[in-house]
Amino acid sequence: MLKPLGDRVIVEVEEAKEKTVGGIVLASNAKEKPQTGKVVAVGDGRVLDNGKQVAPSVKKGDTVLFDKYSGTSVDYEGQSYLVLHDKDLVAVID
Amino acid sequence: MLKPLGDRVIVEVEEAKEKTVGGIVLASNAKEKPQTGKVVAVGDGRVLDNGKQVAPSVKKGDTVLFDKYSGTSVDYEGQSYLVLHDKDLVAVID
Amino acid sequence: MLKPLGDRVIVEVEEAKEKTVGGIVLASNAKEKPQTGKVVAVGDGRVLDNGKQVAPSVKKGDTVLFDKYSGTSVDYEGQSYLVLHDKDLVAVID
Amino acid sequence: MLKPLGDRVIVEVEEAKEKTVGGIVLASNAKEKPQTGKVVAVGDGRVLDNGKQVAPSVKKGDTVLFDKYSGTSVDYEGQSYLVLHDKDLVAVID
Amino acid sequence: MLKPLGDRVIVEVEEAKEKTVGGIVLASNAKEKPQTGKVVAVGDGRVLDNGKQVAPSVKKGDTVLFDKYSGTSVDYEGQSYLVLHDKDLVAVID
Amino acid sequence: MLKPLGDRVIVEVEEAKEKTVGGIVLASNAKEKPQTGKVVAVGDGRVLDNGKQVAPSVKKGDTVLFDKYSGTSVDYEGQSYLVLHDKDLVAVID
Amino acid sequence: MLKPLGDRVIVEVEEAKEKTVGGIVLASNAKEKPQTGKVVAVGDGRVLDNGKQVAPSVKKGDTVLFDKYSGTSVDYEGQSYLVLHDKDLVAVID
Repeated sequence: MLKPLGDRVIVEVEEAKEKTVGGIVLASNAKEKPQTGKVVAVGDGRVLDNGKQVAPSVKKGDTVLFDKYSGTSVDYEGQSYLVLHDKDLVAVID
Repeated sequence: MLKPLGDRVIVEVEEAKEKTVGGIVLASNAKEKPQTGKVVAVGDGRVLDNGKQVAPSVKKGDTVLFDKYSGTSVDYEGQSYLVLHDKDLVAVID
Repeated sequence: MLKPLGDRVIVEVEEAKEKTVGGIVLASNAKEKPQTGKVVAVGDGRVLDNGKQVAPSVKKGDTVLFDKYSGTSVDYEGQSYLVLHDKDLVAVID
Repeated sequence: MLKPLGDRVIVEVEEAKEKTVGGIVLASNAKEKPQTGKVVAVGDGRVLDNGKQVAPSVKKGDTVLFDKYSGTSVDYEGQSYLVLHDKDLVAVID
Repeated sequence: MLKPLGDRVIVEVEEAKEKTVGGIVLASNAKEKPQTGKVVAVGDGRVLDNGKQVAPSVKKGDTVLFDKYSGTSVDYEGQSYLVLHDKDLVAVID
Repeated sequence: MLKPLGDRVIVEVEEAKEKTVGGIVLASNAKEKPQTGKVVAVGDGRVLDNGKQVAPSVKKGDTVLFDKYSGTSVDYEGQSYLVLHDKDLVAVID
Repeated sequence: MLKPLGDRVIVEVEEAKEKTVGGIVLASNAKEKPQTGKVVAVGDGRVLDNGKQVAPSVKKGDTVLFDKYSGTSVDYEGQSYLVLHDKDLVAVID
């Protein structure tokens, strides 16, 4: 199992669904837009200057929105993940 | 529903109204000016170095002014939004 | 009404008076010099790391001096304003 | 023995295993991906602004994931190690 | 009257005296050297992270030394001044 | 005697030993690798934001590892030393 | 008298002595090396975030070592001095 360190969060990226018009698959025209993913693991959080630790603002299972170019790609047991800092997550989708 | 994280605020951008002179629609001559929008969701705020959280200075429903080039565009359920950091909001319009 | 956020201050810029020599209007030869304006609204101030808020150092009605290239231009109800951060104001003119 | 200072961690890098297809060794096609290694020594941690020391978030024996281009290569007694700052470690592999 | 804001100090710059050799005025050969001036007004000082205000380290009437290229030039009632941040003042001349 | 200031440490650099193969001296093939040296003096340490001083993490007599390009070379009484900031020391060799 | 402000220290630079070999004056071959000087005045020190002031780590009369390219040259009453920030002083020579 991968356990992210610090304020990192591991996300399983959701493939952007291609739009189809009358059965014809169209490449997404929004390649630069943020992407969504599912949180699979969260770190213990960053340590403040007073020594306290702040847990990341998302939890395992959350669907999150993040900027396309943030994070580091990681391969683990044949699956590809993205490791992001908590501050690079933009929003949670309820 | 989109829930912004940290000090982020989600805004529905208001289209700049084109000016008309005698019924003729004129393209806005102020394309570089700040834009306005309506706040649709606010995050819980940023965490200070002492561990306390500061709520964003605007609330849902506020009409806000922001710099045209700040924020990240987000598509959600067919609607386009802008995600801004609280500090990038310039003013509230009462 | 425009209410500036954080440590922002809204200023109505004073037009630099053109100098006249013997009735002939001369373009100002000091275009790069700081400008003056009248404060029309002030924000609640910035939040310190200990969570306290520091009010801007000027108040509504003050005539202030600021660097020509600081601030963001804002149009509101046919009037043009400048939004400045409190720290970019150089001096108050009594 | 090498004792890392501050928030540094010394890691013995694991060679990326080459994939074989039908007995033919293939060079890894993921040269830019993060690498893994085994922690052989950890420093006492960084000193916070309040004077307290925060121990690194990993311990001797942990298998860690880190970005390929972080860290400093060190040769010691014929063995090659990598010295990394704790914050550059991405995840622990359980 | 000009009242500087924050940690700013307003200085009346002293013209560098030209050296004369046998009655011949020589342009100063030290144009890049720091300049001196007289403090005509000081701000209330900068606000620390704990909310306290630190008064500038000089007072009205002091003769100060400052780096030639620091500060902002200001014209006020026909007189030219320099507005400097307290930290850009190098020394006081007793 | 040279007494380093702040968080500085003075180190006597150890010459990288040239490898010999069958009596032939070979130039080191690891010129970019970190170097080792012996600590000859340590400063009183850096002052934290709360006013406390943190002693450097090494002591006189320690053999230390440091990055080749860090530090300032100093000649004193015919001997060459390197002055390094405590944070640039990578590890202690026991 | 020149009184340095903040964490500044005023130093009278010592001319690097030229080496002589058999009576022939040789230009120093170590022009890039740190220089030494004598402290002639020290400021009251920098103000910490908690409002306390930290006195510079050297005192009047100390012989100090500093990096050749740090500091600002100042002429005062026919004598040339160097104004340095306390943190740019490398070591004290006892």
